[in-house]
Amino acid sequence: MIQKLTSEERAKQVAQLNGWQAVTDRDAIQRAFQFADFNEAFGFMTRVAIKAQEMDHHPEWFNVYNRVEITLSTHEADGVTERDIRLASFIDSITA
Amino acid sequence: MIQKLTSEERAKQVAQLNGWQAVTDRDAIQRAFQFADFNEAFGFMTRVAIKAQEMDHHPEWFNVYNRVEITLSTHEADGVTERDIRLASFIDSITA
Repeated sequence: MIQKLTSEERAKQVAQLNGWQAVTDRDAIQRAFQFADFNEAFGFMTRVAIKAQEMDHHPEWFNVYNRVEITLSTHEADGVTERDIRLASFIDSITA
Repeated sequence: MIQKLTSEERAKQVAQLNGWQAVTDRDAIQRAFQFADFNEAFGFMTRVAIKAQEMDHHPEWFNVYNRVEITLSTHEADGVTERDIRLASFIDSITA
């Protein structure tokens, strides 16, 4: 059973990511992305989807046209775990 | 300039769709979908994305794991237009 990160661990890990923030009303992290257009936004989502499937760890996300908002949390731990940090790092790596 | 549908036209068109409902607080229509898993949900989203790009008319959508919620409205008309009905019909046709 995967354990959620302590507040200290979470803060430390999130600080090493790029632009991710803790959500205020739940134990999750979030980042918003803006692309040139829908083609670029959905291309990005497709890369994340393939990675997510490989990790068996899926995002919650919203898209409209060139904007994508991603929220990460681990359902079975009811909070942010190492898996979320790993997926967030991957996402950062393809948007650098 | 595309015109939004009147309430009567919208109600009539929406009634011919499958499971779409008017959103209460804005001029938009919405439908929720549930799939077997993420692979199936994202496969569906990819088909919709390609059609949306072809139509140059894009959805607002939220996904988490096997669930997808789609909201359709036409930005430039500030409401539901024929384009939304057409995209909704396509979506219905691939989920029948």
